[in-house]
Amino acid sequence: MSDRPSHTTSLRVRYTEVDAMGYLHHSRFLQYFEIGRVEFLRHLGVAYADLEKRGIYFVVTRAEVQYKKPAQYDETVTLTTTAERQTRVKIEHSYAMTRGDDLLATGRTTIACIDTDGRPRPIPDELSGFGG
Amino acid sequence: MSDRPSHTTSLRVRYTEVDAMGYLHHSRFLQYFEIGRVEFLRHLGVAYADLEKRGIYFVVTRAEVQYKKPAQYDETVTLTTTAERQTRVKIEHSYAMTRGDDLLATGRTTIACIDTDGRPRPIPDELSGFGG
Amino acid sequence: MSDRPSHTTSLRVRYTEVDAMGYLHHSRFLQYFEIGRVEFLRHLGVAYADLEKRGIYFVVTRAEVQYKKPAQYDETVTLTTTAERQTRVKIEHSYAMTRGDDLLATGRTTIACIDTDGRPRPIPDELSGFGG
Amino acid sequence: MSDRPSHTTSLRVRYTEVDAMGYLHHSRFLQYFEIGRVEFLRHLGVAYADLEKRGIYFVVTRAEVQYKKPAQYDETVTLTTTAERQTRVKIEHSYAMTRGDDLLATGRTTIACIDTDGRPRPIPDELSGFGG
Repeated sequence: MSDRPSHTTSLRVRYTEVDAMGYLHHSRFLQYFEIGRVEFLRHLGVAYADLEKRGIYFVVTRAEVQYKKPAQYDETVTLTTTAERQTRVKIEHSYAMTRGDDLLATGRTTIACIDTDGRPRPIPDELSGFGG
Repeated sequence: MSDRPSHTTSLRVRYTEVDAMGYLHHSRFLQYFEIGRVEFLRHLGVAYADLEKRGIYFVVTRAEVQYKKPAQYDETVTLTTTAERQTRVKIEHSYAMTRGDDLLATGRTTIACIDTDGRPRPIPDELSGFGG
Repeated sequence: MSDRPSHTTSLRVRYTEVDAMGYLHHSRFLQYFEIGRVEFLRHLGVAYADLEKRGIYFVVTRAEVQYKKPAQYDETVTLTTTAERQTRVKIEHSYAMTRGDDLLATGRTTIACIDTDGRPRPIPDELSGFGG
Repeated sequence: MSDRPSHTTSLRVRYTEVDAMGYLHHSRFLQYFEIGRVEFLRHLGVAYADLEKRGIYFVVTRAEVQYKKPAQYDETVTLTTTAERQTRVKIEHSYAMTRGDDLLATGRTTIACIDTDGRPRPIPDELSGFGG
Protein backbone atom coordinates (compact mmCIF):
# COMPACT_ATOMS: atom_id res chain seq x y z
CA MET A 1 0.00 0.00 0.00
CA SER A 2 1.43 3.33 -0.98
CA ASP A 3 0.14 6.86 -1.10
CA ARG A 4 2.37 7.81 -3.97
CA PRO A 5 0.47 8.70 -7.15
CA SER A 6 0.05 5.77 -9.51
CA HIS A 7 -1.97 4.69 -12.50
CA THR A 8 -2.91 1.29 -13.90
CA THR A 9 -3.49 0.42 -17.55
CA SER A 10 -3.99 -2.75 -19.59
CA LEU A 11 -2.17 -3.85 -22.71
CA ARG A 12 -2.71 -6.77 -25.03
CA VAL A 13 0.48 -8.35 -26.39
CA ARG A 14 0.66 -7.94 -30.18
CA TYR A 15 1.98 -10.49 -32.63
CA THR A 16 4.78 -8.21 -33.81
CA GLU A 17 5.91 -7.75 -30.21
CA VAL A 18 6.72 -11.39 -29.47
CA ASP A 19 9.95 -13.12 -30.41
CA ALA A 20 10.73 -16.54 -31.81
CA MET A 21 10.09 -18.09 -28.39
CA GLY A 22 6.58 -16.62 -28.53
CA TYR A 23 7.36 -14.25 -25.64
CA LEU A 24 7.03 -10.48 -25.46
CA HIS A 25 10.54 -9.35 -26.39
CA HIS A 26 12.44 -7.96 -23.41
CA SER A 27 13.00 -4.60 -25.15
CA ARG A 28 9.22 -4.17 -25.47
CA PHE A 29 8.84 -3.79 -21.71
CA LEU A 30 10.45 -0.35 -21.97
CA GLN A 31 7.89 0.50 -24.67
CA TYR A 32 5.08 -0.66 -22.39
CA PHE A 33 6.50 1.43 -19.54
CA GLU A 34 6.44 4.42 -21.89
CA ILE A 35 2.77 3.75 -22.62
CA GLY A 36 2.23 3.49 -18.86
CA ARG A 37 3.67 6.98 -18.39
CA VAL A 38 1.64 8.41 -21.28
CA GLU A 39 -1.61 6.95 -19.94
CA PHE A 40 -0.74 8.13 -16.42
CA LEU A 41 -0.35 11.66 -17.83
CA ARG A 42 -3.58 11.37 -19.83
CA HIS A 43 -5.38 10.32 -16.66
CA LEU A 44 -4.13 13.60 -15.14
CA GLY A 45 -5.61 15.48 -18.09
CA VAL A 46 -2.33 16.02 -19.93
CA ALA A 47 -1.66 14.79 -23.46
CA TYR A 48 2.06 14.19 -23.95
CA ALA A 49 1.62 15.14 -27.62
CA ASP A 50 0.45 18.59 -26.47
CA LEU A 51 3.47 19.00 -24.19
CA GLU A 52 5.73 18.35 -27.19
CA LYS A 53 3.86 20.94 -29.24
CA ARG A 54 4.67 23.43 -26.45
CA GLY A 55 8.36 22.51 -26.58
CA ILE A 56 8.35 20.40 -23.42
CA TYR A 57 9.93 16.98 -23.85
CA PHE A 58 10.87 14.11 -21.60
CA VAL A 59 13.88 11.90 -22.29
CA VAL A 60 14.71 8.69 -20.48
CA THR A 61 18.06 8.96 -18.71
CA ARG A 62 18.01 5.61 -16.92
CA ALA A 63 15.96 2.43 -17.14
CA GLU A 64 16.02 -0.94 -15.48
CA VAL A 65 13.85 -4.03 -15.74
CA GLN A 66 13.66 -7.24 -13.72
CA TYR A 67 12.04 -9.97 -15.81
CA LYS A 68 10.21 -12.61 -13.72
CA LYS A 69 7.89 -14.50 -16.09
CA PRO A 70 7.25 -14.23 -19.82
CA ALA A 71 4.14 -12.71 -21.40
CA GLN A 72 2.79 -14.39 -24.49
CA TYR A 73 1.00 -13.30 -27.63
CA ASP A 74 -2.55 -12.06 -27.13
CA GLU A 75 -2.35 -12.14 -23.35
CA THR A 76 -3.62 -9.05 -21.55
CA VAL A 77 -1.19 -7.67 -19.02
CA THR A 78 -1.78 -5.05 -16.35
CA LEU A 79 0.77 -2.32 -15.86
CA THR A 80 0.92 -0.10 -12.78
CA THR A 81 3.07 3.01 -13.05
CA THR A 82 3.98 4.73 -9.78
CA ALA A 83 5.61 8.13 -9.28
CA GLU A 84 8.48 7.49 -6.89
CA ARG A 85 10.57 10.63 -6.66
CA GLN A 86 10.88 14.03 -8.24
CA THR A 87 13.55 16.70 -8.48
CA ARG A 88 13.25 20.01 -10.31
CA VAL A 89 13.94 18.43 -13.71
CA LYS A 90 13.69 14.65 -13.20
CA ILE A 91 11.02 12.13 -12.26
CA GLU A 92 11.56 8.54 -11.22
CA HIS A 93 8.79 6.01 -11.83
CA SER A 94 8.48 2.37 -10.84
CA TYR A 95 6.50 -0.26 -12.72
CA ALA A 96 4.83 -3.56 -11.95
CA MET A 97 3.53 -5.69 -14.79
CA THR A 98 1.16 -8.50 -13.84
CA ARG A 99 -1.06 -11.10 -15.50
CA GLY A 100 -3.72 -12.21 -13.06
CA ASP A 101 -1.84 -13.10 -9.88
CA ASP A 102 1.49 -13.49 -11.67
CA LEU A 103 4.09 -10.76 -11.39
CA LEU A 104 5.76 -10.67 -14.83
CA ALA A 105 8.21 -7.83 -14.39
CA THR A 106 9.18 -4.85 -12.30
CA GLY A 107 11.09 -1.82 -13.47
CA ARG A 108 12.21 1.69 -12.84
CA THR A 109 12.93 4.65 -15.10
CA THR A 110 14.23 8.19 -14.68
CA ILE A 111 12.99 10.80 -17.12
CA ALA A 112 14.35 14.32 -17.50
CA CYS A 113 12.45 17.35 -18.77
CA ILE A 114 14.16 19.15 -21.65
CA ASP A 115 13.34 22.02 -24.00
CA THR A 116 13.45 22.14 -27.80
CA ASP A 117 17.23 22.63 -27.72
CA GLY A 118 17.72 19.60 -25.51
CA ARG A 119 18.55 21.64 -22.42
CA PRO A 120 17.15 20.64 -18.99
CA ARG A 121 14.14 22.71 -17.96
CA PRO A 122 11.92 22.69 -14.86
CA ILE A 123 9.03 20.24 -14.87
CA PRO A 124 5.78 22.21 -15.43
CA ASP A 125 3.65 22.63 -12.30
CA GLU A 126 0.66 21.07 -14.02
CA LEU A 127 2.51 17.74 -13.90
CA SER A 128 2.45 17.53 -10.12
CA GLY A 129 0.79 14.20 -9.50
CA PHE A 130 2.97 12.60 -12.18
CA GLY A 131 6.08 12.88 -10.00
CA GLY A 132 6.47 11.34 -6.53
CA MET B 1 41.71 -1.58 -19.29
CA SER B 2 40.29 -4.95 -18.49
CA ASP B 3 41.28 -8.52 -19.19
CA ARG B 4 37.69 -9.72 -19.21
CA PRO B 5 36.53 -11.08 -22.59
CA SER B 6 34.86 -8.46 -24.73
CA HIS B 7 33.80 -7.82 -28.31
CA THR B 8 33.16 -4.67 -30.29
CA THR B 9 30.71 -4.27 -33.16
CA SER B 10 29.33 -1.36 -35.20
CA LEU B 11 25.71 -0.53 -35.92
CA ARG B 12 24.15 2.07 -38.13
CA VAL B 13 20.95 3.65 -36.74
CA ARG B 14 17.98 2.82 -38.97
CA TYR B 15 15.13 5.14 -39.84
CA THR B 16 12.54 2.90 -38.20
CA GLU B 17 14.57 2.92 -34.98
CA VAL B 18 14.41 6.66 -34.29
CA ASP B 19 11.53 8.44 -32.63
CA ALA B 20 9.76 11.73 -33.32
CA MET B 21 12.70 13.60 -31.77
CA GLY B 22 14.94 11.94 -34.37
CA TYR B 23 16.76 9.97 -31.68
CA LEU B 24 17.32 6.24 -31.40
CA HIS B 25 14.41 5.18 -29.19
CA HIS B 26 15.53 4.23 -25.68
CA SER B 27 14.03 0.73 -25.99
CA ARG B 28 16.24 0.08 -29.03
CA PHE B 29 19.37 0.11 -26.88
CA LEU B 30 18.32 -3.26 -25.45
CA GLN B 31 17.95 -4.55 -29.02
CA TYR B 32 21.44 -3.26 -29.83
CA PHE B 33 22.81 -4.94 -26.70
CA GLU B 34 21.22 -8.20 -27.91
CA ILE B 35 22.99 -7.80 -31.24
CA GLY B 36 26.19 -7.14 -29.28
CA ARG B 37 25.81 -10.49 -27.50
CA VAL B 38 24.99 -12.35 -30.72
CA GLU B 39 28.02 -10.90 -32.53
CA PHE B 40 30.20 -11.64 -29.49
CA LEU B 41 29.08 -15.28 -29.68
CA ARG B 42 29.61 -15.37 -33.45
CA HIS B 43 33.15 -14.08 -32.93
CA LEU B 44 33.67 -17.10 -30.64
CA GLY B 45 32.47 -19.38 -33.43
CA VAL B 46 28.99 -19.97 -32.03
CA ALA B 47 25.79 -19.09 -33.90
CA TYR B 48 22.98 -18.36 -31.45
CA ALA B 49 20.53 -19.75 -34.00
CA ASP B 50 22.35 -23.10 -33.78
CA LEU B 51 22.15 -23.08 -29.98
CA GLU B 52 18.38 -22.67 -30.24
CA LYS B 53 18.17 -25.58 -32.68
CA ARG B 54 19.91 -27.69 -30.01
CA GLY B 55 17.39 -26.60 -27.38
CA ILE B 56 19.67 -24.13 -25.61
CA TYR B 57 18.14 -20.70 -25.05
CA PHE B 58 19.09 -17.55 -23.23
CA VAL B 59 16.52 -15.27 -21.62
CA VAL B 60 17.19 -11.84 -20.22
CA THR B 61 16.39 -11.72 -16.50
CA ARG B 62 17.62 -8.20 -15.78
CA ALA B 63 18.59 -5.18 -17.85
CA GLU B 64 19.65 -1.64 -17.12
CA VAL B 65 20.70 1.28 -19.28
CA GLN B 66 22.17 4.69 -18.51
CA TYR B 67 21.49 7.08 -21.38
CA LYS B 68 24.11 9.83 -21.74
CA LYS B 69 23.70 11.32 -25.23
CA PRO B 70 21.29 10.58 -28.07
CA ALA B 71 22.17 8.72 -31.26
CA GLN B 72 20.59 9.99 -34.46
CA TYR B 73 19.41 8.47 -37.69
CA ASP B 74 22.14 7.10 -39.94
CA GLU B 75 24.91 7.61 -37.39
CA THR B 76 27.26 4.69 -36.87
CA VAL B 77 27.68 3.72 -33.25
CA THR B 78 30.24 1.40 -31.70
CA LEU B 79 29.12 -1.12 -29.14
CA THR B 80 31.49 -2.96 -26.81
CA THR B 81 30.07 -5.97 -24.99
CA THR B 82 32.06 -7.23 -22.02
CA ALA B 83 31.57 -10.48 -20.08
CA GLU B 84 31.51 -9.42 -16.45
CA ARG B 85 30.51 -12.40 -14.35
CA GLN B 86 29.29 -15.95 -14.75
CA THR B 87 27.53 -18.47 -12.56
CA ARG B 88 26.50 -22.00 -13.57
CA VAL B 89 23.37 -20.77 -15.39
CA LYS B 90 23.71 -16.97 -15.68
CA ILE B 91 26.03 -14.50 -17.39
CA GLU B 92 26.28 -10.79 -16.73
CA HIS B 93 27.45 -8.50 -19.53
CA SER B 94 28.21 -4.79 -19.53
CA TYR B 95 27.92 -2.50 -22.54
CA ALA B 96 29.42 0.77 -23.68
CA MET B 97 27.98 2.49 -26.74
CA THR B 98 30.07 5.25 -28.26
CA ARG B 99 30.10 7.54 -31.30
CA GLY B 100 33.63 8.76 -31.90
CA ASP B 101 34.79 10.11 -28.54
CA ASP B 102 31.25 10.47 -27.18
CA LEU B 103 29.93 7.94 -24.71
CA LEU B 104 26.24 7.55 -25.62
CA ALA B 105 25.13 4.90 -23.15
CA THR B 106 26.27 2.24 -20.76
CA GLY B 107 24.32 -0.80 -19.70
CA ARG B 108 24.27 -4.16 -18.03
CA THR B 109 22.22 -7.31 -18.61
CA THR B 110 21.90 -10.69 -16.94
CA ILE B 111 20.96 -13.64 -19.15
CA ALA B 112 19.99 -17.11 -17.95
CA CYS B 113 20.41 -20.34 -19.87
CA ILE B 114 17.21 -22.40 -20.19
CA ASP B 115 16.09 -25.54 -21.98
CA THR B 116 13.13 -26.08 -24.30
CA ASP B 117 10.79 -26.35 -21.31
CA GLY B 118 11.99 -23.07 -19.87
CA ARG B 119 13.95 -24.70 -17.05
CA PRO B 120 17.40 -23.39 -16.06
CA ARG B 121 20.23 -25.49 -17.47
CA PRO B 122 24.03 -25.22 -17.19
CA ILE B 123 25.75 -22.96 -19.68
CA PRO B 124 27.52 -25.15 -22.28
CA ASP B 125 31.33 -25.33 -21.87
CA GLU B 126 31.84 -24.12 -25.43
CA LEU B 127 30.56 -20.71 -24.31
CA SER B 128 33.47 -20.08 -21.99
CA GLY B 129 34.84 -16.79 -23.22
CA PHE B 130 31.29 -15.39 -23.45
CA GLY B 131 31.01 -15.25 -19.64
CA GLY B 132 33.32 -13.34 -17.34
CA MET C 1 -22.18 -0.11 -48.84
CA SER C 2 -21.27 -3.74 -48.94
CA ASP C 3 -22.71 -6.92 -47.52
CA ARG C 4 -19.34 -8.55 -47.22
CA PRO C 5 -18.35 -9.35 -43.63
CA SER C 6 -16.30 -6.60 -42.03
CA HIS C 7 -15.12 -5.42 -38.63
CA THR C 8 -14.01 -2.05 -37.30
CA THR C 9 -11.49 -1.41 -34.54
CA SER C 10 -9.68 1.61 -33.12
CA LEU C 11 -5.97 2.07 -32.51
CA ARG C 12 -4.02 4.82 -30.84
CA VAL C 13 -0.67 5.63 -32.47
CA ARG C 14 2.20 4.86 -30.07
CA TYR C 15 5.37 6.89 -29.65
CA THR C 16 7.59 4.01 -30.78
CA GLU C 17 5.53 3.68 -33.96
CA VAL C 18 6.20 7.13 -35.38
CA ASP C 19 9.27 8.12 -37.33
CA ALA C 20 11.50 11.19 -37.27
CA MET C 21 8.83 13.11 -39.20
CA GLY C 22 6.41 12.35 -36.36
CA TYR C 23 4.28 10.15 -38.63
CA LEU C 24 3.21 6.55 -38.17
CA HIS C 25 5.93 4.68 -40.08
CA HIS C 26 4.64 3.20 -43.33
CA SER C 27 5.64 -0.34 -42.31
CA ARG C 28 3.40 -0.05 -39.25
CA PHE C 29 0.27 -0.01 -41.40
CA LEU C 30 0.83 -3.72 -42.11
CA GLN C 31 1.05 -4.30 -38.36
CA TYR C 32 -2.20 -2.42 -37.86
CA PHE C 33 -3.84 -4.48 -40.61
CA GLU C 34 -2.71 -7.61 -38.75
CA ILE C 35 -4.35 -6.31 -35.59
CA GLY C 36 -7.47 -5.61 -37.69
CA ARG C 37 -7.58 -9.29 -38.76
CA VAL C 38 -6.98 -10.55 -35.23
CA GLU C 39 -9.76 -8.36 -33.80
CA PHE C 40 -12.07 -9.38 -36.65
CA LEU C 41 -11.45 -13.03 -35.71
CA ARG C 42 -11.94 -12.29 -32.01
CA HIS C 43 -15.27 -10.65 -32.83
CA LEU C 44 -16.24 -13.97 -34.48
CA GLY C 45 -15.33 -15.78 -31.27
CA VAL C 46 -11.99 -17.12 -32.47
CA ALA C 47 -8.67 -16.33 -30.75
CA TYR C 48 -5.83 -16.50 -33.26
CA ALA C 49 -3.55 -17.68 -30.44
CA ASP C 50 -5.82 -20.72 -30.01
CA LEU C 51 -5.68 -21.50 -33.74
CA GLU C 52 -1.89 -21.57 -33.52
CA LYS C 53 -2.04 -23.92 -30.54
CA ARG C 54 -4.09 -26.28 -32.75
CA GLY C 55 -1.48 -26.10 -35.52
CA ILE C 56 -3.43 -23.74 -37.76
CA TYR C 57 -1.44 -20.74 -38.97
CA PHE C 58 -1.96 -17.92 -41.41
CA VAL C 59 0.87 -16.40 -43.41
CA VAL C 60 0.67 -13.26 -45.49
CA THR C 61 1.43 -14.00 -49.16
CA ARG C 62 0.71 -10.56 -50.58
CA ALA C 63 0.18 -7.09 -49.18
CA GLU C 64 -0.38 -3.65 -50.62
CA VAL C 65 -0.98 -0.23 -49.09
CA GLN C 66 -1.97 3.12 -50.56
CA TYR C 67 -0.93 5.93 -48.22
CA LYS C 68 -3.13 9.04 -48.45
CA LYS C 69 -2.47 11.11 -45.33
CA PRO C 70 -0.14 10.64 -42.37
CA ALA C 71 -1.24 9.62 -38.88
CA GLN C 72 0.56 11.26 -35.99
CA TYR C 73 1.55 10.27 -32.49
CA ASP C 74 -1.32 9.77 -30.05
CA GLU C 75 -4.02 10.15 -32.70
CA THR C 76 -6.76 7.54 -32.64
CA VAL C 77 -7.37 5.92 -36.01
CA THR C 78 -10.24 3.72 -37.09
CA LEU C 79 -9.51 0.59 -39.09
CA THR C 80 -12.15 -1.32 -41.03
CA THR C 81 -11.18 -4.81 -42.19
CA THR C 82 -13.39 -6.36 -44.88
CA ALA C 83 -13.38 -9.97 -46.11
CA GLU C 84 -13.20 -9.68 -49.89
CA ARG C 85 -12.65 -13.13 -51.34
CA GLN C 86 -11.93 -16.66 -50.22
CA THR C 87 -10.58 -19.80 -51.81
CA ARG C 88 -10.04 -23.15 -50.10
CA VAL C 89 -6.74 -22.02 -48.52
CA LYS C 90 -6.56 -18.25 -49.00
CA ILE C 91 -8.47 -15.19 -47.85
CA GLU C 92 -8.23 -11.68 -49.26
CA HIS C 93 -9.03 -8.72 -47.01
CA SER C 94 -9.27 -5.03 -47.74
CA TYR C 95 -8.62 -2.23 -45.26
CA ALA C 96 -9.63 1.39 -44.81
CA MET C 97 -7.92 3.47 -42.14
CA THR C 98 -9.58 6.75 -41.24
CA ARG C 99 -9.26 9.57 -38.72
CA GLY C 100 -12.54 11.38 -38.42
CA ASP C 101 -13.56 12.17 -42.01
CA ASP C 102 -10.04 11.74 -43.37
CA LEU C 103 -9.11 8.60 -45.26
CA LEU C 104 -5.51 7.90 -44.22
CA ALA C 105 -4.84 4.69 -46.10
CA THR C 106 -6.35 1.78 -47.94
CA GLY C 107 -4.84 -1.66 -48.33
CA ARG C 108 -5.28 -5.26 -49.28
CA THR C 109 -3.71 -8.49 -48.06
CA THR C 110 -3.87 -12.15 -49.01
CA ILE C 111 -3.33 -14.68 -46.23
CA ALA C 112 -2.86 -18.43 -46.70
CA CYS C 113 -3.71 -21.13 -44.17
CA ILE C 114 -0.82 -23.50 -43.40
CA ASP C 115 -0.14 -26.33 -40.97
CA THR C 116 2.76 -26.81 -38.54
CA ASP C 117 4.99 -28.03 -41.38
CA GLY C 118 4.25 -24.94 -43.47
CA ARG C 119 2.06 -26.83 -45.96
CA PRO C 120 -1.18 -25.28 -47.25
CA ARG C 121 -4.28 -26.61 -45.48
CA PRO C 122 -7.99 -25.89 -45.87
CA ILE C 123 -9.37 -22.95 -43.92
CA PRO C 124 -11.39 -24.32 -40.95
CA ASP C 125 -15.18 -24.04 -41.38
CA GLU C 126 -15.47 -22.08 -38.16
CA LEU C 127 -13.75 -19.19 -39.90
CA SER C 128 -16.58 -18.63 -42.36
CA GLY C 129 -17.45 -15.00 -41.83
CA PHE C 130 -13.74 -14.08 -41.84
CA GLY C 131 -13.48 -14.78 -45.58
CA GLY C 132 -15.49 -13.06 -48.29
CA MET D 1 19.04 -8.26 -67.33
CA SER D 2 18.13 -4.63 -67.13
CA ASP D 3 19.94 -1.38 -67.70
CA ARG D 4 17.91 0.45 -65.12
CA PRO D 5 19.94 1.70 -62.15
CA SER D 6 19.97 -0.73 -59.25
CA HIS D 7 21.85 -1.46 -56.07
CA THR D 8 22.32 -4.59 -54.00
CA THR D 9 22.82 -4.78 -50.25
CA SER D 10 22.90 -7.53 -47.62
CA LEU D 11 20.98 -7.70 -44.36
CA ARG D 12 21.15 -10.15 -41.50
CA VAL D 13 17.78 -10.96 -39.90
CA ARG D 14 17.72 -9.76 -36.27
CA TYR D 15 16.11 -11.55 -33.37
CA THR D 16 13.66 -8.72 -32.72
CA GLU D 17 12.54 -8.86 -36.34
CA VAL D 18 11.22 -12.42 -36.35
CA ASP D 19 7.79 -13.45 -35.15
CA ALA D 20 6.57 -16.40 -33.07
CA MET D 21 6.92 -18.66 -36.13
CA GLY D 22 10.60 -17.71 -36.25
CA TYR D 23 10.12 -15.89 -39.55
CA LEU D 24 10.98 -12.32 -40.49
CA HIS D 25 7.68 -10.52 -39.85
CA HIS D 26 5.95 -9.51 -43.07
CA SER D 27 5.89 -5.82 -42.05
CA ARG D 28 9.70 -5.88 -41.77
CA PHE D 29 10.07 -6.31 -45.52
CA LEU D 30 8.98 -2.70 -45.97
CA GLN D 31 11.66 -1.68 -43.46
CA TYR D 32 14.24 -3.67 -45.42
CA PHE D 33 13.09 -2.01 -48.66
CA GLU D 34 13.61 1.35 -46.96
CA ILE D 35 17.16 0.34 -46.04
CA GLY D 36 17.60 -0.76 -49.67
CA ARG D 37 16.67 2.75 -50.85
CA VAL D 38 18.92 4.43 -48.29
CA GLU D 39 21.91 2.27 -49.25
CA PHE D 40 21.18 2.85 -52.93
CA LEU D 41 21.30 6.61 -52.28
CA ARG D 42 24.47 6.27 -50.22
CA HIS D 43 26.09 4.37 -53.09
CA LEU D 44 25.28 7.42 -55.25
CA GLY D 45 27.05 9.63 -52.71
CA VAL D 46 23.90 10.98 -51.08
CA ALA D 47 23.11 10.58 -47.36
CA TYR D 48 19.35 10.63 -46.83
CA ALA D 49 19.96 12.23 -43.41
CA ASP D 50 21.61 15.17 -45.22
CA LEU D 51 18.63 15.55 -47.57
CA GLU D 52 16.35 15.83 -44.54
CA LYS D 53 18.61 18.50 -43.02
CA ARG D 54 18.12 20.47 -46.26
CA GLY D 55 14.33 20.11 -46.01
CA ILE D 56 13.99 17.42 -48.68
CA TYR D 57 11.94 14.41 -47.61
CA PHE D 58 10.58 11.31 -49.26
CA VAL D 59 7.31 9.73 -48.19
CA VAL D 60 6.01 6.36 -49.33
CA THR D 61 2.71 6.74 -51.18
CA ARG D 62 2.26 3.12 -52.24
CA ALA D 63 3.85 -0.21 -51.35
CA GLU D 64 3.30 -3.80 -52.33
CA VAL D 65 5.02 -7.05 -51.42
CA GLN D 66 4.73 -10.60 -52.74
CA TYR D 67 5.97 -13.06 -50.11
CA LYS D 68 7.39 -16.29 -51.60
CA LYS D 69 9.45 -17.97 -48.87
CA PRO D 70 10.19 -17.04 -45.26
CA ALA D 71 13.49 -15.68 -43.98
CA GLN D 72 14.62 -16.88 -40.57
CA TYR D 73 16.58 -15.44 -37.69
CA ASP D 74 20.27 -14.83 -38.38
CA GLU D 75 20.02 -15.64 -42.09
CA THR D 76 21.69 -13.19 -44.43
CA VAL D 77 19.43 -12.00 -47.22
CA THR D 78 20.35 -10.10 -50.35
CA LEU D 79 18.20 -7.19 -51.43
CA THR D 80 18.33 -5.65 -54.89
CA THR D 81 16.64 -2.27 -55.28
CA THR D 82 15.92 -1.14 -58.84
CA ALA D 83 14.81 2.29 -60.04
CA GLU D 84 11.84 1.61 -62.29
CA ARG D 85 10.22 4.90 -63.18
CA GLN D 86 10.41 8.55 -62.32
CA THR D 87 8.17 11.57 -62.67
CA ARG D 88 8.93 15.09 -61.52
CA VAL D 89 8.06 14.34 -57.89
CA LYS D 90 7.76 10.55 -57.63
CA ILE D 91 10.03 7.53 -58.01
CA GLU D 92 8.99 3.92 -58.32
CA HIS D 93 11.38 1.20 -57.17
CA SER D 94 11.16 -2.57 -57.40
CA TYR D 95 12.77 -5.03 -54.99
CA ALA D 96 13.95 -8.62 -55.08
CA MET D 97 14.99 -10.29 -51.84
CA THR D 98 16.92 -13.53 -52.16
CA ARG D 99 18.79 -16.02 -49.97
CA GLY D 100 21.23 -17.97 -52.10
CA ASP D 101 19.21 -19.22 -55.07
CA ASP D 102 15.87 -18.76 -53.30
CA LEU D 103 13.67 -15.81 -54.15
CA LEU D 104 12.08 -14.80 -50.83
CA ALA D 105 10.04 -11.79 -51.88
CA THR D 106 9.48 -9.19 -54.52
CA GLY D 107 8.03 -5.75 -54.03
CA ARG D 108 7.40 -2.30 -55.38
CA THR D 109 7.13 1.12 -53.76
CA THR D 110 6.34 4.64 -54.90
CA ILE D 111 7.96 7.49 -53.00
CA ALA D 112 7.11 11.18 -53.37
CA CYS D 113 9.44 14.10 -52.70
CA ILE D 114 8.03 16.67 -50.27
CA ASP D 115 9.29 19.80 -48.52
CA THR D 116 9.23 20.70 -44.82
CA ASP D 117 5.56 21.67 -45.06
CA GLY D 118 4.61 18.36 -46.63
CA ARG D 119 4.07 19.85 -50.09
CA PRO D 120 5.27 17.99 -53.21
CA ARG D 121 8.53 19.37 -54.58
CA PRO D 122 10.67 18.41 -57.58
CA ILE D 123 13.19 15.63 -57.04
CA PRO D 124 16.69 17.22 -56.85
CA ASP D 125 18.83 16.69 -59.96
CA GLU D 126 21.59 15.10 -57.90
CA LEU D 127 19.28 12.11 -57.39
CA SER D 128 19.28 11.13 -61.05
CA GLY D 129 20.43 7.55 -60.96
CA PHE D 130 18.08 6.84 -58.05
CA GLY D 131 15.04 7.10 -60.32
CA GLY D 132 14.38 4.96 -63.39
